[in-house]
Amino acid sequence: MSSFVEFEKIIAKEINNLNLVVPPEKLYQPIEYVLSMGGKRLRPVLTLMACNMFEPNFEKALPAAIALEMFHNFTLLHDDIMDNASLRRNMPTVHKKWDNNTAILSGDAMMIKAYGYIIESNLPNKNQILSFFNKTALKVCEGQQYDMDFETRDDVSEKEYLLMIRLKTAELLAACLKIGALCSNTSEKNVNLLYESGIDMGLAFQLQDDYLDVFGDTEVFGKKVGGDILCNKKTFLLIKAFELANEKEKSNLFEELKKINFVPEEKIAAVTKTFLNLGIKELTKNKIKELTDSANKKILQLEVEKEKKSELLHLINKLSDRLK
Amino acid sequence: MSSFVEFEKIIAKEINNLNLVVPPEKLYQPIEYVLSMGGKRLRPVLTLMACNMFEPNFEKALPAAIALEMFHNFTLLHDDIMDNASLRRNMPTVHKKWDNNTAILSGDAMMIKAYGYIIESNLPNKNQILSFFNKTALKVCEGQQYDMDFETRDDVSEKEYLLMIRLKTAELLAACLKIGALCSNTSEKNVNLLYESGIDMGLAFQLQDDYLDVFGDTEVFGKKVGGDILCNKKTFLLIKAFELANEKEKSNLFEELKKINFVPEEKIAAVTKTFLNLGIKELTKNKIKELTDSANKKILQLEVEKEKKSELLHLINKLSDRLK
Repeated sequence: MSSFVEFEKIIAKEINNLNLVVPPEKLYQPIEYVLSMGGKRLRPVLTLMACNMFEPNFEKALPAAIALEMFHNFTLLHDDIMDNASLRRNMPTVHKKWDNNTAILSGDAMMIKAYGYIIESNLPNKNQILSFFNKTALKVCEGQQYDMDFETRDDVSEKEYLLMIRLKTAELLAACLKIGALCSNTSEKNVNLLYESGIDMGLAFQLQDDYLDVFGDTEVFGKKVGGDILCNKKTFLLIKAFELANEKEKSNLFEELKKINFVPEEKIAAVTKTFLNLGIKELTKNKIKELTDSANKKILQLEVEKEKKSELLHLINKLSDRLK
Repeated sequence: MSSFVEFEKIIAKEINNLNLVVPPEKLYQPIEYVLSMGGKRLRPVLTLMACNMFEPNFEKALPAAIALEMFHNFTLLHDDIMDNASLRRNMPTVHKKWDNNTAILSGDAMMIKAYGYIIESNLPNKNQILSFFNKTALKVCEGQQYDMDFETRDDVSEKEYLLMIRLKTAELLAACLKIGALCSNTSEKNVNLLYESGIDMGLAFQLQDDYLDVFGDTEVFGKKVGGDILCNKKTFLLIKAFELANEKEKSNLFEELKKINFVPEEKIAAVTKTFLNLGIKELTKNKIKELTDSANKKILQLEVEKEKKSELLHLINKLSDRLK
């Protein structure tokens, strides 16, 4: 059995061999730059992991894995422009290192290249993979649109929020698992179970991000806590807080959000206290637990030898382990 | 035989029936907006026209035609951000009517939808069309990158310029013809002749744009002459002028380009005079004539009844007719 780290190494090697930079260099250098930033390579690893459950020659899923990683990085380029983000993995974002036009055009080229890796491959079920990849890509754009729409709204419901993170994050993670499975010619039942498990996992993944921003251990989490609170981001925690608060708590919370001049630590402390008073910490942990349990259950239902499931189960369970 | 106008009507009707606007509306409204601006629909018409030469049921090429029009309009959305253009077909561009983020994300969605029309179709030779469409899409991005690179360069050669307009403009027009032909199951020879003819036509098309900006009749051309001169755009005319000018003429020309404060009419008159003195007008006309002759010749070589060729020949010849 291969571990996450082994899959990750195979992906890193494949990306290194892509020979990305050809003329015109200014189009292709940013692509190499953003891919060389590394990251966990979670998406392509999921693809290889899913294929490996049913197929010893899991490397046949590599073109799909690379396409999915390329597509994910395309979304980072364009999202970072839209969010005006300066840093990504502690390095300047493409639109800061170069400029907006470069990030737009190199992003476009990345999306085209993502399609290309699938189109020019000999993947099994290629047409089904292409159709599904295409539909997923549109969902990711829809998720990003909802995310932007929510910025100017004060009445986002839990249901709407879950739809948004499903589209923006979970659908692509689920697609990675499903496409990996499709590369193996396993049963439709197994393909669908992996997809459903991926949706649960993706939702849990995003809720965990929301949770750790407030209750994370800075050393483990790797970034300062409270970032979402400082920019009034509509996270699962804030949405649930508004839902559960009484009129007085609601107006206090609005008061904190409206403040223009504030001491960052004080705002973070005040909002965190409200979350704790309203039981949001436990509630979010329970929701994540519920989702990871559901993801686990679907993996256990897969029609494949038990030992083939352990790597993915391990990955899913690591998610909830990080919550204190 | 169907005329340009008839093909155009079929395309317009098909676009009208696309049912583009679904939630999230802010993602899809700009797509409907840009497609409703109209335009000549040259690209999808070329696709239908090419298919119609070999296949009575030319409407089977419609999914490809729509994909190509959608892709072209995606490039307009993103190019207009990059060029900071305020108007397109006398209407506000998407990034002006909405904002940059909307134009980026709706453009991304358009590209994805363009792939979708092909992927979900029953087109003959679908895999070949997809692969070719994908390669063409990347070339268009490369052309846009060269175009931006050239803005800050003073030493662009004719050869480099022709490569740029080939990638940015001609490859997509040629792809429209080739893909239309591929939808008909005609011979490889015919497919390639149409592609080659499309490249010539596309180059002629762009050179004509450059020419008309200086020597066009405002009433016929529909926009004021001299726009390229005022923004120092590196057109075929300017590049040839620098190539053919002696040292004195060259320094005069540089002088005009460097001016910060100038009376627009005077700058246009001065540069136009230099073009006339250097014989750039005739030279450009001859180059366009050469390219349209070459495009014509390839159409005449097609292995299909003569009367099937007349609509496309007519279209190509209209190109050179517009030059005074």
